[in-house]
Amino acid sequence: MRADDPLPSWNDTDTKKAIVAFVDRVTTPGSPDFVPESDRIATFDNDGTLWAEQPMYFQVLFALERVKALAPEHPEWRETEPFASLLRGDVKSAFADGEKSMMTIAIATHFGMTCDEFDQIVRDWIVTAKHPVTGRLYTETIYQPMLELTAYLRASGFKTFIVSAGGVDFMRLWTERVYGIPPENVVGSSGKIAFEFRDGKPVLLRPPEIDFIDDGPSKPIAIRRHIGRHPIAAFGNSDGDLQMLQWTMSGSGARFALLVHHTDAEREWAYDRNSPLGRLDKALDEAQAKGWTVLDMKSDCKTIFPFGNK
Amino acid sequence: MRADDPLPSWNDTDTKKAIVAFVDRVTTPGSPDFVPESDRIATFDNDGTLWAEQPMYFQVLFALERVKALAPEHPEWRETEPFASLLRGDVKSAFADGEKSMMTIAIATHFGMTCDEFDQIVRDWIVTAKHPVTGRLYTETIYQPMLELTAYLRASGFKTFIVSAGGVDFMRLWTERVYGIPPENVVGSSGKIAFEFRDGKPVLLRPPEIDFIDDGPSKPIAIRRHIGRHPIAAFGNSDGDLQMLQWTMSGSGARFALLVHHTDAEREWAYDRNSPLGRLDKALDEAQAKGWTVLDMKSDCKTIFPFGNK
Repeated sequence: MRADDPLPSWNDTDTKKAIVAFVDRVTTPGSPDFVPESDRIATFDNDGTLWAEQPMYFQVLFALERVKALAPEHPEWRETEPFASLLRGDVKSAFADGEKSMMTIAIATHFGMTCDEFDQIVRDWIVTAKHPVTGRLYTETIYQPMLELTAYLRASGFKTFIVSAGGVDFMRLWTERVYGIPPENVVGSSGKIAFEFRDGKPVLLRPPEIDFIDDGPSKPIAIRRHIGRHPIAAFGNSDGDLQMLQWTMSGSGARFALLVHHTDAEREWAYDRNSPLGRLDKALDEAQAKGWTVLDMKSDCKTIFPFGNK
Repeated sequence: MRADDPLPSWNDTDTKKAIVAFVDRVTTPGSPDFVPESDRIATFDNDGTLWAEQPMYFQVLFALERVKALAPEHPEWRETEPFASLLRGDVKSAFADGEKSMMTIAIATHFGMTCDEFDQIVRDWIVTAKHPVTGRLYTETIYQPMLELTAYLRASGFKTFIVSAGGVDFMRLWTERVYGIPPENVVGSSGKIAFEFRDGKPVLLRPPEIDFIDDGPSKPIAIRRHIGRHPIAAFGNSDGDLQMLQWTMSGSGARFALLVHHTDAEREWAYDRNSPLGRLDKALDEAQAKGWTVLDMKSDCKTIFPFGNK
């Protein structure tokens, strides 16, 4: 370990040692596990891995605020589910049927405008909206140890990518400023895009159609499509990351897989096998069976958020 | 212009001066047109812009060689078009119906295998196959002035991307070595990808289905999907690049668009408005109307290919 610790928010446990040992192996010239810089690709899930995902995915909270903001233009929503329940403040009923309502809300709030218009809405929201529990900006409700980890990997010649089920256009507007990960290194779910001319000027539009959901087995597919190389390290926190970790570990040479396990209800949130959000069940079994690294938030982390605790 | 000329293969014409003036404007701190490094995005077409595309797109020549190599496994091809004509050496008849036959050939030669298998086929081919006219490797039949331009832009803090109608998986295997453009900075046409387990090991497959053709109006869409930022400079050579250039020039601030005009039948090939391959017609009109930069191969270039001329 170097004198100036690149991971100050990590306790000096086996988890931290495993990370540093892996980085040393792949970056030491002459090591049998040496990997040239161009192949040092590391992929990170976002929700629950880089930033929190409780009490609800932040992008869903964004969508709910958009429903309220757009309601005056949509009087019909007062009679239509899931909008009617949402506007009465009854989030539970609104999402009683799960995914389907979530998609209806996503389409109503994320599409039907130009790409520039959507970008501006997210840009305005992300610098003002506060997390309902921490009272901080969403972009502050991020995991300090993981922030240090992405920076440590980049300082070690890695290229860091986000590979998330979150909307790619939602994330790209702040990931560079917050994580140091530029827009082109963000892979996520996306809608269709259309190109047309308006008043003689080309515009990109967001028609109301989802194109790609970047979750589960779609993550290795998205990695192939977007990055075109096999990651040598992958970081996630839920069953939706399982195939990304499996794919990463299936390559030859030194590989690293880490699961963030949320075990600290005191300082942040504790949830795993029975959580409807960010369920960590099969991936935890596989990590234990295969010897992947599991980050135990309670014992491995000195600091949780940049501002401290929840 | 600097003492050590970054563009030695360019004659000292207005074209070269326009490029250098643009780069100076966007990179000089305090200049009203200064652009921070993170927004210095430059996109390049590949066929006819970075490497040649005559007498036929190189990827089509690859596909034709694959048809020959695979023919013994496909006795039915001797009776089926367009394969039958191709195997008789009659390329003209094979492609008499244009795009449709080209797609049939693409699917038969590029799909139905794992991604790893496809990569290996391209890797083996690209280091041995020779261009039918130059007798050089395809990766040597590249435009030296454009090679210098990509390096000059990167040295000036730009990120360079390929945005091509060529197959993304075909290009990514050699673009880093040849152009210094890494796989993740290559955007192109693509097929569907599937993720499954074989003998307990995850594999990515190429089912026989085209997913995205990155040409014409799809280029700005692909730029949004993949890069997520508005390029400030774009380089192409055909009508298939028109919308990419229009989109690039539509942003605010300093912008640069360049069309490679193939005017030198002696040292390489001359073709434009009437060419079935790389037709340059509408885009040339628009360049003239809008004052975009046109690179005249004959007068603007000292050197054509790294090895000299055709």
